[in-house]
Amino acid sequence: MGVMRIGHINLRVLDMDAALDHYENTMGLSRTDTDADGNVYLKCWDEWDKYSVILTEADTAGMNSIAFKVEKDADLDAFKKRITDYGVAVTDMPPGEMNACGRAIRFTLPSGHDMRLYAEKEFLGKAVGTLNPEPWPDETKGVKAHWLDHALLMCELNPEKGVNKVAENTKFMSEVLDFHLGEQVLVGPDGDIQAATWMFRTSTPHDIAFVGGPKMGLHHCAFFLDEWSDVLKAADIMAKRKVKIDVTPQRHGITRGSTIYFFDPSGNRNETFAGLGYLAQPDMPPITWTEENLWRGIFYHTGEEAGEFTSVYT
Amino acid sequence: MGVMRIGHINLRVLDMDAALDHYENTMGLSRTDTDADGNVYLKCWDEWDKYSVILTEADTAGMNSIAFKVEKDADLDAFKKRITDYGVAVTDMPPGEMNACGRAIRFTLPSGHDMRLYAEKEFLGKAVGTLNPEPWPDETKGVKAHWLDHALLMCELNPEKGVNKVAENTKFMSEVLDFHLGEQVLVGPDGDIQAATWMFRTSTPHDIAFVGGPKMGLHHCAFFLDEWSDVLKAADIMAKRKVKIDVTPQRHGITRGSTIYFFDPSGNRNETFAGLGYLAQPDMPPITWTEENLWRGIFYHTGEEAGEFTSVYT
Amino acid sequence: MGVMRIGHINLRVLDMDAALDHYENTMGLSRTDTDADGNVYLKCWDEWDKYSVILTEADTAGMNSIAFKVEKDADLDAFKKRITDYGVAVTDMPPGEMNACGRAIRFTLPSGHDMRLYAEKEFLGKAVGTLNPEPWPDETKGVKAHWLDHALLMCELNPEKGVNKVAENTKFMSEVLDFHLGEQVLVGPDGDIQAATWMFRTSTPHDIAFVGGPKMGLHHCAFFLDEWSDVLKAADIMAKRKVKIDVTPQRHGITRGSTIYFFDPSGNRNETFAGLGYLAQPDMPPITWTEENLWRGIFYHTGEEAGEFTSVYT
Amino acid sequence: MGVMRIGHINLRVLDMDAALDHYENTMGLSRTDTDADGNVYLKCWDEWDKYSVILTEADTAGMNSIAFKVEKDADLDAFKKRITDYGVAVTDMPPGEMNACGRAIRFTLPSGHDMRLYAEKEFLGKAVGTLNPEPWPDETKGVKAHWLDHALLMCELNPEKGVNKVAENTKFMSEVLDFHLGEQVLVGPDGDIQAATWMFRTSTPHDIAFVGGPKMGLHHCAFFLDEWSDVLKAADIMAKRKVKIDVTPQRHGITRGSTIYFFDPSGNRNETFAGLGYLAQPDMPPITWTEENLWRGIFYHTGEEAGEFTSVYT
Repeated sequence: MGVMRIGHINLRVLDMDAALDHYENTMGLSRTDTDADGNVYLKCWDEWDKYSVILTEADTAGMNSIAFKVEKDADLDAFKKRITDYGVAVTDMPPGEMNACGRAIRFTLPSGHDMRLYAEKEFLGKAVGTLNPEPWPDETKGVKAHWLDHALLMCELNPEKGVNKVAENTKFMSEVLDFHLGEQVLVGPDGDIQAATWMFRTSTPHDIAFVGGPKMGLHHCAFFLDEWSDVLKAADIMAKRKVKIDVTPQRHGITRGSTIYFFDPSGNRNETFAGLGYLAQPDMPPITWTEENLWRGIFYHTGEEAGEFTSVYT
Repeated sequence: MGVMRIGHINLRVLDMDAALDHYENTMGLSRTDTDADGNVYLKCWDEWDKYSVILTEADTAGMNSIAFKVEKDADLDAFKKRITDYGVAVTDMPPGEMNACGRAIRFTLPSGHDMRLYAEKEFLGKAVGTLNPEPWPDETKGVKAHWLDHALLMCELNPEKGVNKVAENTKFMSEVLDFHLGEQVLVGPDGDIQAATWMFRTSTPHDIAFVGGPKMGLHHCAFFLDEWSDVLKAADIMAKRKVKIDVTPQRHGITRGSTIYFFDPSGNRNETFAGLGYLAQPDMPPITWTEENLWRGIFYHTGEEAGEFTSVYT
Repeated sequence: MGVMRIGHINLRVLDMDAALDHYENTMGLSRTDTDADGNVYLKCWDEWDKYSVILTEADTAGMNSIAFKVEKDADLDAFKKRITDYGVAVTDMPPGEMNACGRAIRFTLPSGHDMRLYAEKEFLGKAVGTLNPEPWPDETKGVKAHWLDHALLMCELNPEKGVNKVAENTKFMSEVLDFHLGEQVLVGPDGDIQAATWMFRTSTPHDIAFVGGPKMGLHHCAFFLDEWSDVLKAADIMAKRKVKIDVTPQRHGITRGSTIYFFDPSGNRNETFAGLGYLAQPDMPPITWTEENLWRGIFYHTGEEAGEFTSVYT
Repeated sequence: MGVMRIGHINLRVLDMDAALDHYENTMGLSRTDTDADGNVYLKCWDEWDKYSVILTEADTAGMNSIAFKVEKDADLDAFKKRITDYGVAVTDMPPGEMNACGRAIRFTLPSGHDMRLYAEKEFLGKAVGTLNPEPWPDETKGVKAHWLDHALLMCELNPEKGVNKVAENTKFMSEVLDFHLGEQVLVGPDGDIQAATWMFRTSTPHDIAFVGGPKMGLHHCAFFLDEWSDVLKAADIMAKRKVKIDVTPQRHGITRGSTIYFFDPSGNRNETFAGLGYLAQPDMPPITWTEENLWRGIFYHTGEEAGEFTSVYT
């Protein structure tokens, strides 16, 4: 029992039509609902719940909230108590307040991000069904994203002021939500400042990550692809569709995944992350990256910053 | 808390030198120990515990036992009670009885296979370490297997006599060990005979599988590779080393994995299984394959039996 | 100057609608013409000439003729003289007798196959054009075959009767048409019977191949794909479209190419051949495969016959 | 008859030991000779002639000369006449003046680069031999480069002064050496300045390329890899061996090839170029890239300059 995986992310977009063209035709998600406020809900072909992305039109890009699905309804009570005991306020959300979901709980991470937990969401099923399924559907568009894989949240890190929301989030996720620490970057003169962490609940190298920066925000949300050959195909499609690519095909040292970064029309960074990387397990000792190897961890091939990794996020 | 993953498999081999040449030079495992009885212990480069394969010289090939690692020591007590309550006898194994492991419990699956649970095994670490690790080690040999991924056990299935050890194992693994059913084959005139099942505890499509046949045994044990390009490389290496290949590069419909099957020198079937396939989750509805699509599920491309899938196992 | 490449192949098909569904929707060719006799002409997206496949409805499957394109019109005169001098009759074909082509010459190979040479064919252009082209077109269907790559012709081989049309064809192609021998299979008690040959004019390992058997015919015609990842995709598409696969993803020892074999609805064997293999050059010494390694050459991984390689052709 | 392919390149290196470590251990070439002047000769595993790279220790990096192999000895006389008739001086090189080669001719391209033609070089054979060969050798190191594929030469381009050595080279290679123009970049207010060209004699998209810049030099020499999965492996190896990468895994729009650029220890740019791209043929209409799509042609995914493409060469 406990948290299973990332459930959905609510992104702010500047222009809904442009955003839908991107998430539908470039990423390959399908629109499954639109609510009374104009929020649009989309799912990937390999997901079974009704949506993993909520698009909300707004004046600024960014992430409104992120939600994780827990295994059982009773988990919500247990987590409410643990979060409250930790000193973080929890708000109950009645069934339906999150569209097509059962009751949920809502709280704010130490970094300021809005997080929710829920146990039920309307079931729609994978595009390939559950009876003698094909390995992939014919009709999917663009990069044919399998599922929303993870999100990387930017958290305030200001060692001089003693502010480290990366470490605070990591402690909270570990102690309260039973996330496991897969990898971390330690920086500073004594090598003891946790500047970035990658945490998991599934057996994949990360379900959420936190990176320190000047202000909180969303660095990127990532969608899963099978393998390296799909990364080339994805980059080709970005070029064909004139999507702004931030980082061309790379291997991450951290997680070992292969990837491209690019921006949706509102400037929210997306990633297509391919491959399992490694089997993450609770008893796997966390991997540590030191300051001088930080960029080798992020972009393994050059060991140098690429694109606008640190400077641009929403 | 609960079962984390497959921990190790004890294989009987006819000739230890030939077996070691295979598992070391073809598969890429490293020898980590030899005990007083001459059993040899090996680990894959991407595993951190001391071993995942135990080779025991014997007059017949096959599997002596299979072990799963649980998250916490207390899980052993909980599972002992649940297994006993289910009506299955449990034997305590003191620390060290399983080489380099803490205390364990041992029981027999309905199918007759010897299974063990343990919470601790001596830690050796991955070949790439945990400090600024490379994505893969230079020195690994052969197909560079990442880890022992799963095993497929043959279970007696004789509908006329009312014997279905696949269904019995599946019920036991589900109800007692909290495994999730990912996929199943249903056959028979009413389509209600569970002839094969794939079950998981990690987020991968299977950690263990059961297939019905005339007698119990080991169908294969599988080692993980990253992706399809590694499957070609693996098949090339089998050809170079004159390893008997059972099934050339294929995609499974079930699990979506890409694969080759081949035999170790004693005739134990091995698999190199590549790719995540899909993210397996407790709330994912199980996939069902019907009798007429059975072989499409096993070997997706032809939809026909390949190699000696049903006729040869140890 | 001289022969440039395979230009087109004329296949007999039993049912034109079924054949078109196959070559258009599975293989990804486009229909470019239909003549007064009902022959249908198709081209691949990466070809610039009007067609590379001609489909002719008939009562039996097989190949009517195969044509190669020469570099210059004057080559036709030179080859006519050389062929005639070799003792093979040549027929002139006026412009237009081969649809959309200039004048051509026609002759019969020692094996009995009808071969043509031509220098001009109507230009249609690649699907991606010649101005700032995309690397691949969006609209192509199925396996998105790049081009007709080569054909393998079955030739009568009966050593006891002293008949070896493989050797006769090879000598003719080499001495008269300046093809280069890339690889050969030598069999028989003295290892001097040329049982199969692979010949090239481009820098790819083969533009035509000859294999000995009980009777003349077409073994397969092959279409080019980029690489191994496309072979998996192609095999998946065959499975989805229920195309009869003869041989699942393999590596050839000969040519090093990766491949699948399958049948069009009339029973003509097709191949999707991926990768360059190696750079074939006039000064590259021919590769020889001995009888005991013959199948290692054909299907490298198992070194054994797969599918119906020797028994079925049209 | 005529030019077959690139034969070898003579590179100046600042430190022979460092250079050898790079070309042997990173690129996977084998040392085959050292001459009395200390020049070191190396070949790739998939080449049969004695060497394709000559390393000469010097105070500056760069290319001393480039040589192409012609099909027959008589070609040398024919080309000597054509080159001389074109107004370019030709120097005869007696057998052995180019190590292990027969007689050769030498001349200077309009751009100032030293080019040689030869018909004979000592034969050593591929690492896999010609009798029942394996598809790849076991002992090869590093990225396991197949062969020297092409070179890109920088040529002076100064439209204001009416200098365009790209166009002059292209005309010369086409009219005198029978190279075919595969692709070109046209720039300038009238779009008529040939700023870069890619030319071929084999059936691959380029055997040599010319790009305009402020001064003549060597932009890069490229070694062939099979496919995209090898590009990732190559980039991983560069990272492991701390080779300075210029451009991480990319697709070229021009040639469609996938690639990385990096520098040898002396600063000579290398490329690993993977895949056939397309079948280049004399009758294929040349592809034109316009100025606004120039970078889409070079680096397809971003359509922007990457690394130090225009600013750094030797």
